[in-house]
Amino acid sequence: MTDFLNECQGGVTAAQGFQAGGVYCGIRKAKKDIALISSQAPAVTAAVFTLNKTQAAPILVDKKQLAQSQLCSAIIVNSGNANACTGERGLQDAWTMIKTTAQALNVPEQQVLVASTGVIGQYLPMDKVIAGINDVATKLSKDGHQDAAEAIMTTDTFQKEVAVQYTSGTATITIGGMAKGSGMIAPNMATMLAFITTDAVIEHSALASALHTANSRSFNRLSVDGDTSTNDMAAIMANGLAQNKKITEGTEEYSKFVTALEYVLVKLAKMIARDGEGATKLIEVVVAGAHTEEEAVQAARAVANSNLVKTAMHGADANWGRILCAVGYSGIDFDPARVAISFNELPVLNPNYEIVLNEDEAKKILSQDHIIINVNLHQGSASACFYTCDLSKEYVHINASYRS
Amino acid sequence: MTDFLNECQGGVTAAQGFQAGGVYCGIRKAKKDIALISSQAPAVTAAVFTLNKTQAAPILVDKKQLAQSQLCSAIIVNSGNANACTGERGLQDAWTMIKTTAQALNVPEQQVLVASTGVIGQYLPMDKVIAGINDVATKLSKDGHQDAAEAIMTTDTFQKEVAVQYTSGTATITIGGMAKGSGMIAPNMATMLAFITTDAVIEHSALASALHTANSRSFNRLSVDGDTSTNDMAAIMANGLAQNKKITEGTEEYSKFVTALEYVLVKLAKMIARDGEGATKLIEVVVAGAHTEEEAVQAARAVANSNLVKTAMHGADANWGRILCAVGYSGIDFDPARVAISFNELPVLNPNYEIVLNEDEAKKILSQDHIIINVNLHQGSASACFYTCDLSKEYVHINASYRS
Repeated sequence: MTDFLNECQGGVTAAQGFQAGGVYCGIRKAKKDIALISSQAPAVTAAVFTLNKTQAAPILVDKKQLAQSQLCSAIIVNSGNANACTGERGLQDAWTMIKTTAQALNVPEQQVLVASTGVIGQYLPMDKVIAGINDVATKLSKDGHQDAAEAIMTTDTFQKEVAVQYTSGTATITIGGMAKGSGMIAPNMATMLAFITTDAVIEHSALASALHTANSRSFNRLSVDGDTSTNDMAAIMANGLAQNKKITEGTEEYSKFVTALEYVLVKLAKMIARDGEGATKLIEVVVAGAHTEEEAVQAARAVANSNLVKTAMHGADANWGRILCAVGYSGIDFDPARVAISFNELPVLNPNYEIVLNEDEAKKILSQDHIIINVNLHQGSASACFYTCDLSKEYVHINASYRS
Repeated sequence: MTDFLNECQGGVTAAQGFQAGGVYCGIRKAKKDIALISSQAPAVTAAVFTLNKTQAAPILVDKKQLAQSQLCSAIIVNSGNANACTGERGLQDAWTMIKTTAQALNVPEQQVLVASTGVIGQYLPMDKVIAGINDVATKLSKDGHQDAAEAIMTTDTFQKEVAVQYTSGTATITIGGMAKGSGMIAPNMATMLAFITTDAVIEHSALASALHTANSRSFNRLSVDGDTSTNDMAAIMANGLAQNKKITEGTEEYSKFVTALEYVLVKLAKMIARDGEGATKLIEVVVAGAHTEEEAVQAARAVANSNLVKTAMHGADANWGRILCAVGYSGIDFDPARVAISFNELPVLNPNYEIVLNEDEAKKILSQDHIIINVNLHQGSASACFYTCDLSKEYVHINASYRS
């Protein structure tokens, strides 16, 4: 399915015509906290946003921007402060970030988006932010992708970057991106920011559809703690410099683009899960044998969100009963007696409650840092995968005093 | 509202004609693990059960029993093993527990209910269980309520008993009960067992309605970790020995009975929340100013289930942004700018995002072992309360190796 893709370096600046940078301006902690992505040509842009009713100022502002213009030249991002629950003043601050960026880069204000992540309910220190924007605008480069990926991190422990290339006719299309987690991650977006860039020539409607589809199978199947943030967004900019034949919906080239984009987003989603707050392992929950993909997702989400399953995985405890229990309260209709469960390739429960658990073998598998929980409902042919992490004492430690 | 009630001692044997006992039979750990409740006269009985699709054997068996007979003379309970996901053999074991109890007490098999709590997916050691039932049947007494309350505990750290009395005409009605938590507790029942006894004379339909109503405002508004167990049940036995005028629905006496029952169940629910696995404090989430009680419950549940809110409360961190965020993804329609939040009596957020947080005062309140989070949506007049606990490292510790 993804044989035509080649991974490459460069993250959010891998595609032609994109530059990025990241600097420290002093918002909250002694780490880079301002990131800027810039395209040399105005890029067709689509985005998806948090479904939380409490939406941060940058989310509200970006929605207005994208309603006015489908083109975007730059995205300015700060970490350390979410600019959420900040009312009128927060909105003004978000607009100021846009205006400052537009002036610094000499691009129209309508072509700038803004994103924030961090603590809720505090005003941005705008003097520092403005100085940071003016600083980062002078430091844009092709090599700046790592600085940018670092600058959007909050409690993340590593940078999250992916890029792929593939051939479209005589052209080479590159899709690259970066993301940050790592708490408050739940289906339907998370405290999750993802910025994707591509040099593909693509219709705006096709770009929006591709993002919607790929997002539904990646970031919307990702949960760290079940909390959906006020600030989530995933945006994709397509500047057309690859000069491929324009991609439109319903074509083979569109399918390839979606597959490539899904590859990038799933890979970022897995990185976010693996780097969940306090996480020691990546857990993939695969539910197969469902009547529909939606039911498979619903069951997998319940397992992935279960604190009891996540703590058991943390302790490498093959407590499959908690998995069957979580499917039981997921809301889907199924017959528990038909269910089979395995960890990676190791069966632990066969249908009719035949328990085939080998504790020693299971312990070995569950002690690894990547676990696949397979649940087969044996009632249909649909399946879905959901990404999460284990729940550790460190999660509690991090979140019991996040603001301090 | 509850002025007519007097608390009294005696838990599940406080009402006339009830005896109980608890013994150790060796199911799993060195603690009492078999409890028996017995009524000297067959009692009108109603129960509510888990909504989990994966239902343990005793749940399936009890539903059959109650479909055949509205009278119950005894309830036999074991802890240490949930008899869940155990298939045909598990069903046979549950029936054997009922038959053994019926023989030991010389009551009809149809008049015995069974409950189990503990590890999922293991068969009961029936030789030990049968010996334990025969043992506890010889040890029933009026003083046995504490032994019984102890015997149903799993990771609970204290016994949970409540009893109240009130006057009905010339009669005195007593309602008493016991419950156990303490993990896998979520709305719509939990790994929660509750057994209530009363000497009231009451119609079966009125008893069932009263349980349904009181349950919806207590155990169904209780969450420790969001997991709904396979084994939950709450049962009430009414043996009529108080000789009051028979209570029927729609009467003033019915209202009093519901109020008294709700009082008992809410008190047990709070005890379960306070004793949630690893919990260091009881948290009440009160959502007011909602359009409907359902919306208030929905918002309060989201706050109570948020790992981020629960860890913040654990760390005495006044992170009200997480509370507003949780209401935001609860699914209800509201205007975040109208919301006010306070901890106990201390306002932290006024409408229009006016932040009035005094960190020192808030820290004092949040360091107590009982916190009330008040959220006012300012859009209606309905309200609801939800009960939960903080999320600690100890929760992770307990659940990372529960089976070991």
